[in-house]
Order: sequence, then structure tokens, then C-alpha cells
Amino acid sequence: MKLNKNFLKFSDDYFFYKISCKIKDFIAENKEKKVISLGIGDTTMPLCEAVISAMNNSICEMSKKETYRGYGPEQGYKFLRLKIKNYYKEKGINLNEDEIFIGDGAGRDIGDIQEIFSEDNIVLIVDPTYPAYIDSSILSGKKIVFLNGRKENFFLPMPNNDIKSDIIYLCSPNNPTGSVYTYENLEKWVKYAKNQGSIILFDAAYEAFINSENLPRSIFEIKDAKECAIEIGSFSKTAGFTGVRCGYTVIADDLIFEGCQVNKLWMRRQTTKSNGVSYITQRGAEAIFSKEGQKQIKKNIFYYKENTKLISNSLNEKGIWNCGSENSPYVWAKCPNDMDSWDFFNLLLTNLAIVAIPGSGFGSNGDFYIRFSGFNSKENTLEAVDRIKNLSLI
Amino acid sequence: MKLNKNFLKFSDDYFFYKISCKIKDFIAENKEKKVISLGIGDTTMPLCEAVISAMNNSICEMSKKETYRGYGPEQGYKFLRLKIKNYYKEKGINLNEDEIFIGDGAGRDIGDIQEIFSEDNIVLIVDPTYPAYIDSSILSGKKIVFLNGRKENFFLPMPNNDIKSDIIYLCSPNNPTGSVYTYENLEKWVKYAKNQGSIILFDAAYEAFINSENLPRSIFEIKDAKECAIEIGSFSKTAGFTGVRCGYTVIADDLIFEGCQVNKLWMRRQTTKSNGVSYITQRGAEAIFSKEGQKQIKKNIFYYKENTKLISNSLNEKGIWNCGSENSPYVWAKCPNDMDSWDFFNLLLTNLAIVAIPGSGFGSNGDFYIRFSGFNSKENTLEAVDRIKNLSLI
Repeated sequence: MKLNKNFLKFSDDYFFYKISCKIKDFIAENKEKKVISLGIGDTTMPLCEAVISAMNNSICEMSKKETYRGYGPEQGYKFLRLKIKNYYKEKGINLNEDEIFIGDGAGRDIGDIQEIFSEDNIVLIVDPTYPAYIDSSILSGKKIVFLNGRKENFFLPMPNNDIKSDIIYLCSPNNPTGSVYTYENLEKWVKYAKNQGSIILFDAAYEAFINSENLPRSIFEIKDAKECAIEIGSFSKTAGFTGVRCGYTVIADDLIFEGCQVNKLWMRRQTTKSNGVSYITQRGAEAIFSKEGQKQIKKNIFYYKENTKLISNSLNEKGIWNCGSENSPYVWAKCPNDMDSWDFFNLLLTNLAIVAIPGSGFGSNGDFYIRFSGFNSKENTLEAVDRIKNLSLI
Repeated sequence: MKLNKNFLKFSDDYFFYKISCKIKDFIAENKEKKVISLGIGDTTMPLCEAVISAMNNSICEMSKKETYRGYGPEQGYKFLRLKIKNYYKEKGINLNEDEIFIGDGAGRDIGDIQEIFSEDNIVLIVDPTYPAYIDSSILSGKKIVFLNGRKENFFLPMPNNDIKSDIIYLCSPNNPTGSVYTYENLEKWVKYAKNQGSIILFDAAYEAFINSENLPRSIFEIKDAKECAIEIGSFSKTAGFTGVRCGYTVIADDLIFEGCQVNKLWMRRQTTKSNGVSYITQRGAEAIFSKEGQKQIKKNIFYYKENTKLISNSLNEKGIWNCGSENSPYVWAKCPNDMDSWDFFNLLLTNLAIVAIPGSGFGSNGDFYIRFSGFNSKENTLEAVDRIKNLSLI
């Protein structure tokens, strides 16, 4: 039996694993200190009441013979797909529910979607980036081309027709930089993709964090995007579903390559390799779209955004350049004094017992940056901000 | 952008979809008739009390800030892996918990596991078979070789060293035939795999349905199997988790190919492309292994097995040869009067309003067979059995 050679291209030191080891070592040597993590992007607020109530009801259904449910549709229950359809309609986007696929988290679909594309494709990735785009491209044997996101272009690099690409990962608001492509930007991306015959995989995981009225929340707000883009949505950060696992993927009927409707291929993949998502989870996700659900999750989003503001302000006071807090749960900061990202990580951990994520983990353009997140509690964030005030930068 | 050519090898008429269309048509034309499905293998008994109670507790935890949980470990929570470890220990199999990977259903792992193997491998599949083995092998571009399961070999074909293979799917108790490999059989399989340098993917989804004391419930009961086999387990049929989604994959440290520990590669895959399984689901699965949980699920398994006995007996009375009911939730029957499987399917549907699954959907050796399942209610099964009594076979 021969192994998949693409899996052998990885080194053993997984980035986040390295961070956790460093934290462990620090704690072992500093047992009296309270470490505050403004690092990994995980939610901390409990599931909202509407979700809890819906999940309790569905568990009750599963406990009775009359209402028990076995296998659900591989594409997801219609009750949830209809809610997502309406959510898009409110943004002026018309979908039919068969263009929506429920999955157990955007993270999974982001990687798995590559299966329906040939190995012989070039993947274009904006750097800095969410590492899963790179890793899943390597695992599936594809060539990667990077587009440089820098302070000078507001971490919103744009393509030109000299760059050849087949598959394009876009994340807006971006993780880790929090930068958001404008309507004009995305129009250019769609034009470029159509010109190249390439497909855009649009990761909209953070769309609910956008404050500004004049920024697109979906690639499908752009004309012709249905013909060249797939959108992947998530309930993880929006509704605290990181431990519950639910997301969705939208593939319009108009997305056709080599005469094939791409959503038919994805449906084929899902019916072969998935048995759908937990009924209980889907009922929980449905409740996010109720009036109360929307109100409750918006309250949590506001809470996290307040934290990012606190962090951003405290960095500003220290003269540390940063961006992202306006429209995302992240603060992307330039390491002071020309420190590289691991140096600044070590300084924050050692001197302040604060964890942030070294920008280098998101690509070479992140080498001198660091990512803070607003997902910790207000109390911890305030304490961290207090510590930052005392940061001595000689 | 170029599509994955393997996805274009499929015709559009998905087998189970064809069945559902035929049922729909029949119902449209026979609105007064009650159709009883002894077809698709889906559970109908509600989740047991222990599971319901554990899930309710975990939802309560998720509703409070102090006990809320975000991302869990990609490999699954240790509390569940320890329970599975103990479950194996009771069978005399020693594992460490890091050799156990929690997934959201065996169906998914069965296909996804192929990703870590090269496209350039030959897959050996016993025919008749669970279709997902074939489909996921085709989707991943691998060549397939079939081994014929026939009445004459009790649907338990054995390999010989002239057959070249790299990856071997074994399902015991088998779906659809319900036949179970003996200790002696599996010893030969392990010897063959080691001889060939191939890997066995052992699907143990139905192990809890084995009645006979002298049959192996795990491939790891066989000496040296850890060095050549992966076992995939499921809670779907055992505990009614078809709509809840949870299963596990066991890859021992001793499984080494090309100098690589296979479980390290799978871990790499899971950390890249999965964010773990719902915390609520894993707490539910944990409760299966409690004393009460075991008692309660065994009651359900007994209930389903009683149904298969009823079906088997009624077929025997009609002189219809059948097997499988002893150690699986299925009855695998030879179509009477040399009918092929679609003919007998049509006859059962048209004359008795009973649905069974045509054997041809499980491979060419199933062409003249049909699969009944014990997963319907006792009442419906009794009614179906009554109807079978009136089946006229001229």
C-alpha cells in the first residue's frame, strides 16, 4: 500500500501545536501567573437562549418514537435551508434552497470542496491567510500562488490578468487581518475570475462582524458572481457554534464548468461521503434565524467587538499600529521595534502572560505582525489591556 | 478551472434515488395503500434514556458561561475515547486512547480515510458490498478489484496470494448479506494483507448485532491485525445515532507504512480538515457506554433482531432461501422463481406494498437477491410478514 505523498510534505510542527507547547512551558514555570489568551479565535459566550431552547426541543423529539428522526437529507434539512435562503433574500440575493448545502462547519467544507476540482489546478491565496486554505491545497496536491497582502495595500491585494489561477480563496472580512474587500474590489475579483475561467471560494465566516454599511457581506452581492463563485458560511463565530459544528455552502445553479453544474458534483460528493448533519444541531442553527435568535447573537457579536475596540485602543495608546477591529473580531497589529512575530509573541507571554497569535503562522507577510482576538471575556480583556499599558518597549 | 475527472465517472441515477422515485410513483397511484419499508437501513427506535439525559446535561452546560465549550479536540474528547478504549478492553484488546479518533459517523471516515492513501492503489472489495466503498474508491481515482461473495461461499469470499491488492474493505457482519467472518477467516485475511503489504479497512458498524459467541467482533481480536488494519466503528445502528452522527476510527501505533505511522497522517488530515465533533453529540455517545446505556441499547438491538427473525421465518415458510438474520439487522434473500432483484422489488412493492432493497445495488453478485431490514417497528414488521404470507409465487 502506498501513502498519499502530499501528506508527507508536512513537517510535524503544526503551528498551533507549537503555540500550545510554549504556553504549557510558561505555565509550568509560572504557576502563580494567570495567562490570558487573546489568541485562538474561539468563542466564549454561551449558546443563546433561542438555540438552547430549539436544541432541547429536538432532543425531546429524539426521545419519542413518534418524533424520532434517523438519517436526514445529506444536503441538510429544508427547514434550515429555507431560513438561509431568506437570510440571503434580506441582502437582496435570490437563491433557491437547492443551491444551499448544510455542512458540519465551514472549516470542513473549505477543505472538502477541493475534492471536486482536479489536482491539476493552481490555487491563488491571499497572504496573510487562514492556514487551512494552504494546508488543504497541499494535501490535495495543488500548486499554490500567493498574492501579497501588505500594510500598503490595506491587506487587500488585487489580482491582475498576468497572474494565472484556477481556484481563488478569498476571506472577507479576512482572518487574520480583519480587512474587508469593498464592492469595487469584489467586482474586480469577479471580473478577473471570469476572465481567467477560475472559481472563487468565498469564505464569509465573519460577515456578521461587519459594521460599515457600505461593505459587501456576500460575494453574491456582486453581479455575475453566481457564475464564478462558491460562498461558504459559518455559525461558529456568529452564534458560538465552534463546539456545535454547523455551516453552509452556497453553489448557484449558474456555476457551470466543463458543461457541469458544480452543485450537482458537490451533491454527488455529499451523498457518497457524508450522512448529513445532526438533526439537533440543525434545529439549533434554525433558531439563529428567529427574531429572538438574531437579537441574541447580535448582542454577543457586539460584546466581542467591544473587546476588539478595547484591545485596539490600548495598542494605539502604545503607538502600536493595528487594523481590523472595525469589521472583524480580530486586531491585526504591527509588532513594535521591528520585532518579528515570534519575538513579540514571546515578549507578550513572558512579560504580560498574554497570548496572541504570531502573524507568521498566517503566511510570510505576517512575519512582523501579531493577531489578537476579541473572543475572551470582557473582564479578561480589560485585565489584558491593563497589562498592555505596562508593556515596556525600550 | 478543471473539474476532478473522477466525479464525472458517475451516472446521475443514484441507486437509492431510483428506489425513492419508484416508491413515490407507487404511492401517487395507490393513495389508499400503506407502504411498509423493510428497505433502507435506518433506525426507528428513539434514542435511549441514558443518551437523552447526557445530551440534555451537555446542552445545559453550553448555555452557561462557566461550562460553555468552544472548539473541542479534532481527535475527539478524551472522555469518549477512554470509554471506547474500555469497550475494547472488555474484548481483550488493549489500545491507548491516542489510537482512537472520534468522527461524525463511520460513513464519513470510510470515505475520507482514502485521502491518506495514494491514488495509485488497488482496492479490493467483497461483492455484494456497502456501495460507499466502491463510490469513494472511484471518487478518489483508485482501481477496484472485486472478490465474489456467493451463496456457495456463504458470501464470505477469501483471498489468495494471486490477487494483488493494496487496500481491502471488509465489513463483518456484512451489509447487505449479514454474513460474519470467523476467527479462522480473519486470520487468513490478516496473513494475506501482511503478505501483500496491504491494509485492511475493517467496517465494524454491525458488530453489536452478533449473537454467536464464537465470532470475532473486531479485527483486532486477530493476532498482528494492528500492523495491517484500521477499524471503523459506528453508533448509528447500535444506538440509533443515524440522525445524530458519531463514530470512531481505530488506528494502532503499530500500523506503519513507508516508515510512517498511519495514525499520525490521519491526525494531520483531521487537524487540517475537521474541527471535531459536536460536544453534545460526544456526551451522548459517552452515555452509550454507561451501565444503563448498554442495557438500553441492547434492548433496542434485541427488538430489531426479533424483527429480522420474523422476516426470515416468513420467507422460510414461503420457501425463499435467506441468511443474515442471526448476526445482523438484515435478511438477505434469494429472489424466488429466478426473478432478478428489480423484478422482485417491483413485485413486493406492487403486490404487497412492501419495500426492500434490490440486491443489484450492492454489486453484481446481488443481482438475484434482495435485502430486508429489521429496523421498522414490530407492528409494521408483523403486518409485512402477514402480507408476505399472501404472496403468490406462481
